Amino acid sequence: MTWRIVPREEKFFELFDLQASHGYEAARIFKELVAGWNLDSPHFERLRDIEHEADIATHEIIDKLNRTFVTPFDREDIHELAGETDSIIDLIHSLSSRMQVYRVEKTTPELIEMADILSQAADNVRKAVAYLRQYENAERRILDYCIEINRLENAGDRLLLAALGKLFQKTGDTLEIVKWKEIYEVAEMAIDKCEHVANIIEGIVVKQG
Amino acid sequence: MTWRIVPREEKFFELFDLQASHGYEAARIFKELVAGWNLDSPHFERLRDIEHEADIATHEIIDKLNRTFVTPFDREDIHELAGETDSIIDLIHSLSSRMQVYRVEKTTPELIEMADILSQAADNVRKAVAYLRQYENAERRILDYCIEINRLENAGDRLLLAALGKLFQKTGDTLEIVKWKEIYEVAEMAIDKCEHVANIIEGIVVKQG
Amino acid sequence: MTWRIVPREEKFFELFDLQASHGYEAARIFKELVAGWNLDSPHFERLRDIEHEADIATHEIIDKLNRTFVTPFDREDIHELAGETDSIIDLIHSLSSRMQVYRVEKTTPELIEMADILSQAADNVRKAVAYLRQYENAERRILDYCIEINRLENAGDRLLLAALGKLFQKTGDTLEIVKWKEIYEVAEMAIDKCEHVANIIEGIVVKQG
Repeated sequence: MTWRIVPREEKFFELFDLQASHGYEAARIFKELVAGWNLDSPHFERLRDIEHEADIATHEIIDKLNRTFVTPFDREDIHELAGETDSIIDLIHSLSSRMQVYRVEKTTPELIEMADILSQAADNVRKAVAYLRQYENAERRILDYCIEINRLENAGDRLLLAALGKLFQKTGDTLEIVKWKEIYEVAEMAIDKCEHVANIIEGIVVKQG
Repeated sequence: MTWRIVPREEKFFELFDLQASHGYEAARIFKELVAGWNLDSPHFERLRDIEHEADIATHEIIDKLNRTFVTPFDREDIHELAGETDSIIDLIHSLSSRMQVYRVEKTTPELIEMADILSQAADNVRKAVAYLRQYENAERRILDYCIEINRLENAGDRLLLAALGKLFQKTGDTLEIVKWKEIYEVAEMAIDKCEHVANIIEGIVVKQG
Repeated sequence: MTWRIVPREEKFFELFDLQASHGYEAARIFKELVAGWNLDSPHFERLRDIEHEADIATHEIIDKLNRTFVTPFDREDIHELAGETDSIIDLIHSLSSRMQVYRVEKTTPELIEMADILSQAADNVRKAVAYLRQYENAERRILDYCIEINRLENAGDRLLLAALGKLFQKTGDTLEIVKWKEIYEVAEMAIDKCEHVANIIEGIVVKQG
């Protein structure tokens, strides 16, 4: 008979995976929504559901964190990782709700491109998180995902400035400018959140290394 | 003669109470201000005073935290609780200043309802904080206040979307839209801050439990 | 032969100094840019460079923090100090990019004054940070810089409200209002970040004291 001294904290990794999968799913659905823009799309409802499921997963992580003595990483890092991953999903859901409320009639090439970058960034977050449970053998691989997320965030930044430039110079209707300025900014904030998550993951890996 | 080994940290609880009371007072005054909207209301001055008093209380908590070795809860939780409670008051004060600067002429039913929700949420924060000093016997009660704050925040969220929907569809004047979009958003941020505080309190209670 | 038990963490202080110098440099360049406003100014490029250099310094601090066992201050404080100082520079750079993208044609007396306050605040941050390595003998001096930063932040706050009041009452063009509202708000956020940094420094000094 053997004793396990440190309890297996596999459950944390399962919950991280679940959250990161929700994040990618939300980004993927949003990309589809934007590509085939339609105010009656069932994708709005789907994003609401994902946001709700992600909230439950986040709450479960925080609750588990508060009740667990030995954790796989620093408590603070777990707290931040859960909160920031949840924020990616919140931002995507909130963006889709706003576009619906604003009765946005058609999409733009810039938003389609931003949604594509967001979906790639969320995919890389998901992959990096999946390797966290075996970080000892996957440090290089995890850091590569993080570098790719950084690259995507820089692309998102440049795209935002280009989109705003075009918006302010080509749009005559101030109300349209107000709406689209917010849409582009929130899309970029969601990409930015993916980079925050990448920074947290990088910190976890480097500390353990 | 008896010795107290752990110093009584009652002072922390008194300061938390004071902050949470300022929070409720600010929300209550704001609700009154909005219900009887008037650009010359003495309530603007009152909110400025509360914000100032709350700043002093927050500074006192942080200072005490930095100078105290044994604290009633995790240092980080105390720091966050103080900062986020202060943010509720900052947001309410900043919202009232903006409405004054924008020379808002009349209020809306949506803002009256948001101010009511905010005042209820701040009241529940105050009650939850008051029970923190005896959390061992009041865990269920504290968590019930937190659940109620969550419910109010969801109501605030839905109200914001409804208010924005009406604003964008019924208002012809873009400048009015710009002003009211910000007013509604900041009001919702203040309600959201009450939920952040509830989450911190929940974490404190669960960890100690 | 003598042994040094605690490794000298001089490198941390050098990196803090570097970051704080970048912060002051960015604020100084921005002040010059605003005073002699010109969409083709080489200062835009210079701000981009400083932002990039500051990013590298921040990354170096976080990396060093993750790899170092004994740190001169609480890990959390180092993390926050590095992140918030970097945010000052990010905000200044982002503000200049936005003004370029919005094709802002001329500056305003209010922005010139805000840029001056920002530059003074960033200068005080730099001085306070420079004394951190000898905080035992410089507590009073460091706290005086922090008090001055608080005073400047209050002045910035009042200036923002005055600038917005004038903007909303004197400007007929809603698009101009939308642009300048954001410009003033981001300038105030940069000043506000200097105050956050001052609060962190204050906490470090008081804890060690």
